[in-house]
Amino acid sequence: MSLQGFFEAKSVAVIGASRKHGKTGHEILVSLIRGGFEGPIWPVNPSAEEVEGLKCYPDLKSIGQKPDLVVIVVPTDAVLDSVRQCGQVGVKNIIVITSGFKEVGPAGARLEEELVQLVRGLRMRMIGPNCLGLMCLKNKLNASFGGPLPQAGSIGVFSQSGSLLAAIVDMAREMGVGFSKLVSIGNKADIGEIDVLKALGQDDDTSVIAGYLETITDGDAFIREAERISRDKPILLVKAGETGAGAAAASSHTGRLADTQRAYECVFERAGVVRCESVTAQFDYARALASQPLPVGPGVAVVANAGGPGIMAADATERSGLELASLSPQTRARLAEKLPATASVSNPVDILGDALADRYENALNTVLDDPNVHSALVLLSPHAMTECTKTAEAVVRVANAKTQKPILACFLGAGRVAEAIEILRRGNVPNYKSPEFAIATIKAMAEYYRWRSRPKRVVKLFPVNRRKVEKIISRHLRLGDSEIGEMEAKDILDAYGFVTPKGMVATTAEQAVDFARQIGHPVVLKIWSPDIVHKAEVGGVRMGLTTPQEVMDAFDLMMYRIPKKRPGAQILGVLVQEMCKSGREVILGMNRDSHYGPLMMFGTGGVMVEVLRDVAFYLAPLTAQEAKEMLMSTRTYQMLRGAGAQENVDIDAIAEGLQRLSQLVTEFPEIQEMDINPYVVGPEGSTPIAVDTRIKVAPAK
Amino acid sequence: MSLQGFFEAKSVAVIGASRKHGKTGHEILVSLIRGGFEGPIWPVNPSAEEVEGLKCYPDLKSIGQKPDLVVIVVPTDAVLDSVRQCGQVGVKNIIVITSGFKEVGPAGARLEEELVQLVRGLRMRMIGPNCLGLMCLKNKLNASFGGPLPQAGSIGVFSQSGSLLAAIVDMAREMGVGFSKLVSIGNKADIGEIDVLKALGQDDDTSVIAGYLETITDGDAFIREAERISRDKPILLVKAGETGAGAAAASSHTGRLADTQRAYECVFERAGVVRCESVTAQFDYARALASQPLPVGPGVAVVANAGGPGIMAADATERSGLELASLSPQTRARLAEKLPATASVSNPVDILGDALADRYENALNTVLDDPNVHSALVLLSPHAMTECTKTAEAVVRVANAKTQKPILACFLGAGRVAEAIEILRRGNVPNYKSPEFAIATIKAMAEYYRWRSRPKRVVKLFPVNRRKVEKIISRHLRLGDSEIGEMEAKDILDAYGFVTPKGMVATTAEQAVDFARQIGHPVVLKIWSPDIVHKAEVGGVRMGLTTPQEVMDAFDLMMYRIPKKRPGAQILGVLVQEMCKSGREVILGMNRDSHYGPLMMFGTGGVMVEVLRDVAFYLAPLTAQEAKEMLMSTRTYQMLRGAGAQENVDIDAIAEGLQRLSQLVTEFPEIQEMDINPYVVGPEGSTPIAVDTRIKVAPAK
Repeated sequence: MSLQGFFEAKSVAVIGASRKHGKTGHEILVSLIRGGFEGPIWPVNPSAEEVEGLKCYPDLKSIGQKPDLVVIVVPTDAVLDSVRQCGQVGVKNIIVITSGFKEVGPAGARLEEELVQLVRGLRMRMIGPNCLGLMCLKNKLNASFGGPLPQAGSIGVFSQSGSLLAAIVDMAREMGVGFSKLVSIGNKADIGEIDVLKALGQDDDTSVIAGYLETITDGDAFIREAERISRDKPILLVKAGETGAGAAAASSHTGRLADTQRAYECVFERAGVVRCESVTAQFDYARALASQPLPVGPGVAVVANAGGPGIMAADATERSGLELASLSPQTRARLAEKLPATASVSNPVDILGDALADRYENALNTVLDDPNVHSALVLLSPHAMTECTKTAEAVVRVANAKTQKPILACFLGAGRVAEAIEILRRGNVPNYKSPEFAIATIKAMAEYYRWRSRPKRVVKLFPVNRRKVEKIISRHLRLGDSEIGEMEAKDILDAYGFVTPKGMVATTAEQAVDFARQIGHPVVLKIWSPDIVHKAEVGGVRMGLTTPQEVMDAFDLMMYRIPKKRPGAQILGVLVQEMCKSGREVILGMNRDSHYGPLMMFGTGGVMVEVLRDVAFYLAPLTAQEAKEMLMSTRTYQMLRGAGAQENVDIDAIAEGLQRLSQLVTEFPEIQEMDINPYVVGPEGSTPIAVDTRIKVAPAK
Repeated sequence: MSLQGFFEAKSVAVIGASRKHGKTGHEILVSLIRGGFEGPIWPVNPSAEEVEGLKCYPDLKSIGQKPDLVVIVVPTDAVLDSVRQCGQVGVKNIIVITSGFKEVGPAGARLEEELVQLVRGLRMRMIGPNCLGLMCLKNKLNASFGGPLPQAGSIGVFSQSGSLLAAIVDMAREMGVGFSKLVSIGNKADIGEIDVLKALGQDDDTSVIAGYLETITDGDAFIREAERISRDKPILLVKAGETGAGAAAASSHTGRLADTQRAYECVFERAGVVRCESVTAQFDYARALASQPLPVGPGVAVVANAGGPGIMAADATERSGLELASLSPQTRARLAEKLPATASVSNPVDILGDALADRYENALNTVLDDPNVHSALVLLSPHAMTECTKTAEAVVRVANAKTQKPILACFLGAGRVAEAIEILRRGNVPNYKSPEFAIATIKAMAEYYRWRSRPKRVVKLFPVNRRKVEKIISRHLRLGDSEIGEMEAKDILDAYGFVTPKGMVATTAEQAVDFARQIGHPVVLKIWSPDIVHKAEVGGVRMGLTTPQEVMDAFDLMMYRIPKKRPGAQILGVLVQEMCKSGREVILGMNRDSHYGPLMMFGTGGVMVEVLRDVAFYLAPLTAQEAKEMLMSTRTYQMLRGAGAQENVDIDAIAEGLQRLSQLVTEFPEIQEMDINPYVVGPEGSTPIAVDTRIKVAPAK
């Protein structure tokens, strides 16, 4: 394990240790000493005899022993020399604090490349450069300039921003969190987020992993590793730098809608990563996940000694998508037995302003016994008679006895509840400043539980004609032709089991009439040109033509008008196509993210796709379950399922379409973007028709 | 002014003052004494000689002077007697702390009614009952049991939840806020939210009003008063108990989509009230609004000494709808002059980890001089060399010199920046725990500025035929008929200047053919029955009929099939209607909220209205500007304005339609719900057609 040597170091040397207060080389040495590290600490600096009371060595070799860990904090141009020194004595684990590498521009990037080559050649592992260092609470190792060691706990932290890590450490007490390890990964030239994820995943002292990332280096590996670890330990990530990365250059609807942010959402959803909007939310979630069981369902019970905060909690619960658990008649009767007549025994349970600790304890125990309740939130407003500390003790007692359901607290106020909050903290019951934060936390926990308890992913493989698709794609790639024309796109769909409308390309009006007769009226006419992507915009689509005369007129009008609207366009003829039975128009699509692979899309189809933006994304390959979840997360779904619909459409058929498309784009990494739009879906038992398709290919990476 | 007497009381009596520690009657007296109130404090209690060192009187009369304010904290059944005592000596201002009234059920509600009658008869004003009391910082009046007086400041607070008020007071120091007045309005039996709004609006010591409400008693008065006050002082409200109040019983699309939450959004938008999702957000906003100028635009400049937090601020800015100000070349040049080469002179401006106070001061001054910058956020991560306190002083200096643009700070961490944060607080620069909170605050400030600087509201009145509508509505009301049929609904629209399709009701197939000939093919046939609301669902709509034969067939098929599908339905014939030129289908609608009046709706029309939910609401009467803003806030608008649209539609014509509808529903309060759907809109210069209409009437309240 790549970081074990760091975590378990029994001796540390600091190259660049300095006597000057305020210098990083001094601060790190002081951190190591004050942190209480029990092994030897060796300052290395040729120009000092002693630093902070420790004998200082001119170089590594003169120590006479091999340090388990070396921290390098020398000027940028001396870093490589220091690493060579480490190599000479066989050091395996180094932390390069020094900055001035990739983050300062091309020259720095070259130097960093050299550094990495050197490190790899010497078979070392390196954290950094341009980082804050490392903290391990178990062995009191503070090899960082991130401030004094925070309180120990079970949250493992890594951060691509050193400043943020320092702020987290500084706020730890106030946030009521404790840590196992904190790793500042800096420029992550050698050890990156995947190494740290692996290490924290295997670390027995870590039960929750919280990370801050700006970039993810290897998307595939990240998904694999995160998904594996998430099964046992929640990973909470703040991913910064997400917005603004549009996809303006894409030619498909899916491509234009699938921006980087969508890709991250898909990746996190697949890998079970709990995505956090902010660092405060992250630690709100982390301390509950580190101390409380997961809620197995959406039912929240709220116990409060005041109306207002109870209502606020109820509002937040509804907004979050959780539910205020409806309490059973038995529960209500049990509550009523012990509560005053004016108390509210429905959820939120209002035990009134004069509630003492015993009333809290009884009410909390009672609601937790209700099978509809999956989690509980205790709200306390400090009134004159409120027993704040005793109530905190009672809540801790209940939490220790009833260990199947999470209990969160929100003791409102500051000074008046400070002691009570400290009792809660020591008793591992997380407390929140305001009910919304507690509810948001329960929501995150419930989502994580849902992910962890999802059925095993089984991707169905349909029998297809792969060879046919291979031929079409490879010919296009050979010719450098990235857009696959309508007829061949149709062949590809046929090969993967989609049903497409019958159709033929006519070059004269007479031929069009003849084809229409063969296909059977009514028919659709579509202009047939490699240069016209959005046919409808130029009047290149005419539907519902029922007579030979209409077909002839439509053909001639297209030939007369379109060349005027698009003077340069090469027009090859007009596609005469079977008119689809009426049905709902949906879109099935895919956009290949350069990092994470094929993002599948489902949504409301037709020309309004990009305006309505009623779409769902998911990472291919899809299971049947995932395909259905995509469906169900759109508003389109409600429309398809009745509510205003004239008849139910065949949901399973759409899900199968998504799975077939998922198989196609998984088996052909050359397919970069693809839309099937409209995909016309009819009532149950009917076969959806893939009316129009756009496929863009490029050599697979 | 109803509350002035309370705020400026120079003497206070407490009926029910108690010697027993822990009793509310004791706590209030102690609050008054410890608060430092300078006037006389008279405890009243027949069973005590002295309380907390003050002479205690057996009744009010025996004091021999008239108290400006009396606090009543006796048992519930003794409250009315105490009020009568007050009446006897001519007391005008009372606070009833005692609970046991409306909040405990019908018997309590009756007692409360009696209390109110008594109070009104004696020409007193009353805060409460069932409240926490009142705090006025100026004269150190703490007539409450909400804890010791918090720090003075310019935020005026009122709350329908006493517990929440106590929590706010307790958290004041931690939140860095100071108050002018705090009013617990309890059951608001006499003095309610409008009185308090008025009083705080007029109070010179209050610059920002923050309230917590569960119910609003008089919607119209609330809107009027809040709108008036918001022009000078921001009103920040947390409105609890909003979710879950659906409108399942409504028969129109608009009625079903306009739930209580929408109504509140409309009311707050109209009145300029800043709606807060939580109390923490409320005080985040309040302290910036109380200390900083408003940003006149969306451009935010971020100055940071670390990359990570800068990126987080940038993400939050984009998500919020604000903009990262793009800095002018001059600004960038000026920044580059004073910053190290590796610093980033584009926004977020990264002045690097070794930035001292002077670098902050210079960068901040420089970005604030840029006309693209409307607000600035200073991020500080405490590194070893960071001058936290000196930087705080520099930020305060800049804020004092550049008073035209708001400056907010986010000094990350806790202990290491504690002193700096205190300097910021004293210097009136609000500091936030995390960049997102600061950005959310700037967003709220910018939204409030936008509201305040909106043009004067001028509602255009169109010449209409009001008499005609009056007749139709009054006949329906007389007959107890709440749904107005299609033909008369069309007459109403005609009277208000809408264009509706030509149409006549045919009772035989021959008549239908004849009408179709008169109107001109193609035509639409619609089943004509008071019992069939959703015609399309039963096959009762046939479009694009181009020949007499088609008309005849369609007529006969409806007559044959529909009675089978809807056996009991009374079928009066078939409407033969002009076929509308193709265009976009939008919906114009109105739902009358019982509290706040007519909520106008605009959105994507057709059968998918309720599924797509792409709708905007606004309170009637609408100005042209507001009608356009409704349009622009929908996705439909993007579709209408090009982006994928085949031609631009006439936006002004739609806005006029909304204004006409607004006038109709304003002039006829009997109209309870109304949909014009589809309202078919064509290219610029063309006239939109109101194809279908539903109008529901009831006697006006």
